[in-house]
This record gives sequence, C-alpha cells and structure tokens, in this order.
Amino acid sequence: MRLVRIQHEAAPRWGQIEGDTIHLTRGMTGERTGETLALSGAALLAPAEPTKIVCVGRNYLDHIRELGNDTAGLPGEPGIFLKGPNALAEPGGTVLFPDWTENFHFEGELALVIGQRASALKPDMALSAVLGYTCGLDLTARDLQKTDLQWFRAKAADRFCPLGPWLETDLDPTDLRVRTRVNGETRQDGRTSHMIFDVVQILTYITRYVTLEPGDVVLTGTPEGVGALHRGDTVEVEVGGIGTLTTQIG
Amino acid sequence: MRLVRIQHEAAPRWGQIEGDTIHLTRGMTGERTGETLALSGAALLAPAEPTKIVCVGRNYLDHIRELGNDTAGLPGEPGIFLKGPNALAEPGGTVLFPDWTENFHFEGELALVIGQRASALKPDMALSAVLGYTCGLDLTARDLQKTDLQWFRAKAADRFCPLGPWLETDLDPTDLRVRTRVNGETRQDGRTSHMIFDVVQILTYITRYVTLEPGDVVLTGTPEGVGALHRGDTVEVEVGGIGTLTTQIG
Repeated sequence: MRLVRIQHEAAPRWGQIEGDTIHLTRGMTGERTGETLALSGAALLAPAEPTKIVCVGRNYLDHIRELGNDTAGLPGEPGIFLKGPNALAEPGGTVLFPDWTENFHFEGELALVIGQRASALKPDMALSAVLGYTCGLDLTARDLQKTDLQWFRAKAADRFCPLGPWLETDLDPTDLRVRTRVNGETRQDGRTSHMIFDVVQILTYITRYVTLEPGDVVLTGTPEGVGALHRGDTVEVEVGGIGTLTTQIG
Repeated sequence: MRLVRIQHEAAPRWGQIEGDTIHLTRGMTGERTGETLALSGAALLAPAEPTKIVCVGRNYLDHIRELGNDTAGLPGEPGIFLKGPNALAEPGGTVLFPDWTENFHFEGELALVIGQRASALKPDMALSAVLGYTCGLDLTARDLQKTDLQWFRAKAADRFCPLGPWLETDLDPTDLRVRTRVNGETRQDGRTSHMIFDVVQILTYITRYVTLEPGDVVLTGTPEGVGALHRGDTVEVEVGGIGTLTTQIG
C-alpha cells in the first residue's frame, strides 16, 4: 500500500493511494474517514512526522572511495549523523541554493519511516518496525562538511532533506535500484544490495543507543556519483518499487 | 517566573510556580486552568518539548584546553551538534551507566528553551526568542567521541540530556555561575561570561541555518572540569538564578 501525506484544506493529512484516488485517513496509520480526492493535483508533503532523522554516512564502498576516504580499515559499525525535522522538504518542492556554501551536493538514498516505537531491536524483528519506504535526498554542503565541528550546517540546515513522494509499505529493501538524475542525466545508479550495512543491521545498531518513534526517518546512505548542484537544477531520486522524488534547486 | 513541567494524573502538564504551589496552565505558555498542586512531591519532567536539541561544543577556552584540543586557531564560529528528543531525562531522575562506554562524562551547562519560532534572528531580537533558562547535563561517552563518525552514540543516546528543574523566564544570561558537583564535590565552576560565543551570538548563528521551534532546547557549552562518572554517582548542575538539576547514575 502507498501512504501519502498532503496539505488539504489548510491542514496536513494522511491518506492511502488507490489508483489516482487518495482515501484520507485518521493519522499516519489510522482508519479511512470516507473523504477522497484526486492524487493528481494534490499538494504532497514529506511523508513523515519525525522526532528525528537518523542518517547513515559512508554506507556504499564506491562512495567512500569517491570522497577520498579511507577504505582500508572499513568501519565495523555504521557511521550515524542526525538532522532535525526542520530539514524536511516536500516532494516536488524547491530548495534554495544556500548563499553560504559553494559546493552544494546531492545524495540520493533509500529512506524508511518508522511505524512503531523501537528500542533494542533484534534482527528478526527489525523490519517490522518499518512502516514504509520512500526516496530521500540528503543535501550536503560539502565544503562545510570539512570545517563544521560536527556536520551541522553541512547536513542539518532547513530543507536539506527532501523526502517522498509517498511511503510504500509492501517492499523488500534488500536489492532496490537507487538512481539520481540531475536535469535528466543519470548521476548515481546503485543497488541497496551494495550497502555495507543493510537495513536490518542499521536498525539494530541505531536502536541499541536511540529509541526510534513512529514517524522517525532513517536515511540509509548514498551510492557513488554524488556531485555539485547549481541554481536551476532539477534533481530526481528514483528508488525501485517506490517512485521518484523531484526537487528543484532555486 | 518559573515554569515547570510535571507528570500529573498520567499526563504531562505545564504550570507556573508560586512559592510551593504549581498553578497548572494550558500548555507551555498558556493561561492558568485554575488547578493547583504542591511543588514538593510533584513529579517533575524535563521542562521542554523539543523538536531538536542544539548543542554548542567547545565554548569555554579552559574546557578546550583540558580536552587537549587546539586553541591556537580558535573557531570563528560556534561548533554545533544535535541530540534528538530521545535524549531528554527528567530532573531528579536516574540515568543508567551505558554498558557500551568506559568513559562516561558529565558536562554541566546553561540551557535555554525557545518560546517562539525563530529564523535568521538579529542580535537585538535574539533573547526575545528565549522563553526561559534552565540547567542541562550534556552526558558524553568520551571514548566513543573519538571513534563515532559523528557524535551519535557519544552525545545523542537515550537520556543523555537531563534537563531542569524548571524554566526561569526572567534572567540575564550574560554572567551566571555554572557549577557541577559530583557526590557533593565541586568539579566545574565557571561563569557564562567566559563563553567564547555568548547566548546572542549562539542564537543568531544557529538560526541562520536552522529554524528553531517553540520548545526547542539549546545547550550553551560546558566550562572546564569535566570528568568521568561511575555507577552510584550523584551529579548536580547548579546555575545561578535558576536552581539545581540532580541526576543519579545507575
């Protein structure tokens, strides 16, 4: 099933997609209310209401190499960083090129949204904590990543996390194609089977230290091919079985 | 005025303190409801409902020196890192010594809680975005700070941010005494006038990149004297004009 979050009559609402129809629901996982509207023309919002956005860095070998980072001693555990809910941006939206970076990068990723409070997850239960999967764009001020004490401006600034277009709840995340196109040209083309730490390992690791809440977002890392964006660019992140997240750079 | 958040009849509630009486209110900044109860015996909660906890690292010169970090080229801007709401812990509470660190440190700090949405604050308006001030304990797994890709386990784990006991709304933050005691012995004794970046500079810096929401928490950095905690320790963070935040290490 596909779950969508939209702006409807001045309020954010959740709904279920059937064909071109959105059936509005009571909250993210609630019952249908009986109200319907057309998907085409609906004002989509990022399909999550997180208390935090937990991101995995350096999770694809070829991406570690392209950034010039050491792959000799690969990390024995996932490298994690945080964004706040301020970072979310809606699918189809515009993100302004910040006037304080000179190297603004795209990183297309598989994202997942948590459906139930999760702490100390065991591997065989990890995926049951996931409500659904979507596309994430981990926008990065690459120049400031080198100078920030921690990646605050580099990763956590307002609207640095476009997410969407919807949640796909019935999906096996183990071997999905993740592509990023800029102005129609394919720049990243990876598969989630090439992750160093898979979704189960990511979730068991995170929840050993941090309790995940319903609506929390996890970004799973980006494959190789990241690069600089320019004003006027159109970025598309497409994940197999989900759809395409489109973002304009303004 | 002092604002307190308590657990009352199975729900979190906000109130105003007058002497030993709590006057319950509608939300953090709302009107009194007419309900009252005694402060003594009330179950205090962390006085904040943040969407994020924004922390300043290395904001006191003597603390930078004690950690062996370079002070020759002092940062021209604040070094920021994030914790999620999962990190909050209540005043008077117990934080379990994590079984995954061997060097668990206290860092006592002045904390502030935001009262209204704030973006791109100008210096002369910065303090008006603050609802009140309180005491914060920035718990830190010092050993993992060196190995985490970013300070995820080191700083953002569950209950790594005890906060309280209440918000003091009428306070000048420029020269407050910040003391930390462990088992009654004073270990940190600094003044906020020794911050490298003061509260106004911190808020103008953060809000250039990130929108702060009502209830968000900002930790302003710790003076020198940080050190290791052990099971059974009692940590007290006392900030002048506010009160004392007490935390047990279990």
